[in-house]
Amino acid sequence: MSKNYYTHLECHECGTVYDKDSRHTFCPDDHQPLVAKYKLDNFWSKESLKDRPANMWRYKEVLPVEKEENRICLGEGFTPMLKLSKLGGKVGQGRLLLKDESANPTGSFKARGISMALSKAKELGVTAMCIPTAGNAGSALSAYCAKAGMEAHIFMPEKTPHVFQMDCEIMGAKVTKVDGDISDAAALMQKENDGSWFDVTTLKEPFRLEGKKTMGYEIAEQLRWELPDVVVYPTGGGTGLIGIWKAFQEMKDMGWIDKIPTRMVAVQGSGCDPVVQAFQKGMDHTPKYQNPAKTIANGLRVPKAFGDKLIMKTLYESKGTAVSITDEEMKEGLSEFATQEGVFLSPEGAAVWMGYKKLRSENWIKEDESVVLINTGSAYKYVENLY
Amino acid sequence: MSKNYYTHLECHECGTVYDKDSRHTFCPDDHQPLVAKYKLDNFWSKESLKDRPANMWRYKEVLPVEKEENRICLGEGFTPMLKLSKLGGKVGQGRLLLKDESANPTGSFKARGISMALSKAKELGVTAMCIPTAGNAGSALSAYCAKAGMEAHIFMPEKTPHVFQMDCEIMGAKVTKVDGDISDAAALMQKENDGSWFDVTTLKEPFRLEGKKTMGYEIAEQLRWELPDVVVYPTGGGTGLIGIWKAFQEMKDMGWIDKIPTRMVAVQGSGCDPVVQAFQKGMDHTPKYQNPAKTIANGLRVPKAFGDKLIMKTLYESKGTAVSITDEEMKEGLSEFATQEGVFLSPEGAAVWMGYKKLRSENWIKEDESVVLINTGSAYKYVENLY
Ligand SMILES: Cc1ncc(COP(=O)(O)O)c(C=O)c1O
Ligand SMILES: Cc1ncc(COP(=O)(O)O)c(C=O)c1O
Ligand SMILES: [Zn+2]
Ligand SMILES: [Zn+2]
Repeated sequence: MSKNYYTHLECHECGTVYDKDSRHTFCPDDHQPLVAKYKLDNFWSKESLKDRPANMWRYKEVLPVEKEENRICLGEGFTPMLKLSKLGGKVGQGRLLLKDESANPTGSFKARGISMALSKAKELGVTAMCIPTAGNAGSALSAYCAKAGMEAHIFMPEKTPHVFQMDCEIMGAKVTKVDGDISDAAALMQKENDGSWFDVTTLKEPFRLEGKKTMGYEIAEQLRWELPDVVVYPTGGGTGLIGIWKAFQEMKDMGWIDKIPTRMVAVQGSGCDPVVQAFQKGMDHTPKYQNPAKTIANGLRVPKAFGDKLIMKTLYESKGTAVSITDEEMKEGLSEFATQEGVFLSPEGAAVWMGYKKLRSENWIKEDESVVLINTGSAYKYVENLY
Repeated sequence: MSKNYYTHLECHECGTVYDKDSRHTFCPDDHQPLVAKYKLDNFWSKESLKDRPANMWRYKEVLPVEKEENRICLGEGFTPMLKLSKLGGKVGQGRLLLKDESANPTGSFKARGISMALSKAKELGVTAMCIPTAGNAGSALSAYCAKAGMEAHIFMPEKTPHVFQMDCEIMGAKVTKVDGDISDAAALMQKENDGSWFDVTTLKEPFRLEGKKTMGYEIAEQLRWELPDVVVYPTGGGTGLIGIWKAFQEMKDMGWIDKIPTRMVAVQGSGCDPVVQAFQKGMDHTPKYQNPAKTIANGLRVPKAFGDKLIMKTLYESKGTAVSITDEEMKEGLSEFATQEGVFLSPEGAAVWMGYKKLRSENWIKEDESVVLINTGSAYKYVENLY
């Protein structure tokens, strides 16, 4: 059994502590997410990483899964960090990088969170799961459930590209298509769940966040423990944004890094940008976005994230910002990025690229700063949106 | 500048030596492939790998690219090696593994070969490339040419799923669809090439093989330098099969491994299986397969590989074998694999799984042997074939 420093869960809002050995979802008092806490005294040396496998489990000491045999692993994590020298030259940014999450199993960064959530669920005896999804989380849940021998119940908006449904069904998951957006899918799921399915909705379940945070550890390790000045992230439910920020705090607490210079940026689609609107008004939460528009970036069509307060907190604490991008801009970005850097971004990744350019042109991002863009998924699952 | 032991090219058939500083294609005397040779005295220790990046360039000493600045890198290589415990249990194979090449840039193992070929071409001053492709090599060539600022001319069979054309075009490549199979595409390409395009057809160019061989190094490293008893590989042009075998020989020459117990298996589609037929007749080359059938495994529809002699040599030397799989079997395998192991295989990968099962049921592969299956590409590019 490997050493592991996971101690308990804590409500980020009211601080109530929940024990690590029972199943928990969110805080029943204030309906806010629970976050995993670790004993972070400086006894785990980052030197030990050298011999570790090239996947997210290399950070096992700060992950909640206690027994190695419970890990459900398809090779998630430790994705490439690419230097964008051509585009960097064009826009005047010496240190411009892309973390390419399309290399993950099932073609997106969702693999990290789902792998972690399911591994921990296995450890706690869960056998059936359900999720509302914009597509990629459903693909991931289906794959990891298949591997784990668990049941997967997937609820996705009708407008999701057909490949996502096929992907889930070939893994043996039960898919329900829903007329509406991801909030409507969540509502129907809740109605159909008689309590026997464990709900792994973004941040209603505490451990997807722990999987996603490994992106933060990797960014640090791949940049040799010098954090970037800016991270630009396509924000739907927000786990990645919150997770990366959480990882940075943990590394500081462990003494792995001295300071956190990073400003976290949330990019959203202009047809559904609750975070951008709340940020402009200085709010600590996001009111539900009314009538979200259809978009090619399915993952960004989230009218109300359960972790909205954590998203806003991350932006304020890190002195970050939030920007909106139109579908037209995403398409323009897709093509510019492909011809220059040879990466076919997901629409969400293209939104990140265009959001970055906006901030660079306003000089909110300075020429000499180091910037990490996140491409969260594989473009190949989105071709139906691009014809 | 990093140390590098590349010395020259050699015709595998007649042994003629070609210098390393000029551009070469194949041996003009006998129209056979050239292979790269290295100074393999035991001075490079595998211990040095610990600090290397998680991509194929970690093996730089035995790669032909001499200057680091010439590398065109999108994060290719060091893909996951997954334990197939459920299916292994089902068929009675304690050590059954999957090397999942779908994690590569552009969604297939072709990224390795193309990255290497283009990096070396850059080193030798080439600026425009052409290729006949079943799809994935075209995607890869387009992406790496975009990154390198080179011109890409792609010739693909009309029957290739549409996403491949889109993928190439978004990268700025020029795509010509050809009525026929990959040999017809090659013929048209040769007619249209006035000599200004460098031809990177499988094994008519010597360095794609060097990229593909890194799979062999990774298999060894990921298995802690104990080679598997069997490697099962979906064979079209054959570079991967030949490359893995070449890597094993090199590692033996360097003293990294004592012996090579591995038998190499080629799997082909039953509607176009020139290698299987030649193997059954004990031939040293493959006659051109007449009227190859349409298949869901586009990458296997190669009626005549330029490296046919090297393919056959690899099978005989390694005491391997060759098997054919039908499209129906591939579909069955796809679904079985997905529901059990959570991996949506490419049709070529599904052929490998079914080919393995055939050999296991005939007891050609024994219960206690260790087996590595190769999933060469991402299923998401093939959905059009699967509806
Ligand atoms: C490709 C892609 N990018 C971004 C997102 C949004 O991610 P998060 O919920 O972590 O904000 C999603 C969610 O579906 C996605 O699939
Ligand atoms: C997914 C896939 N598998 C296998 C092959 C055959 O590979 P090779 O030419 O190395 O035999 C191809 C070639 O196009 C391919 O795309
Ligand atoms: Zn609370
Ligand atoms: Zn010769």
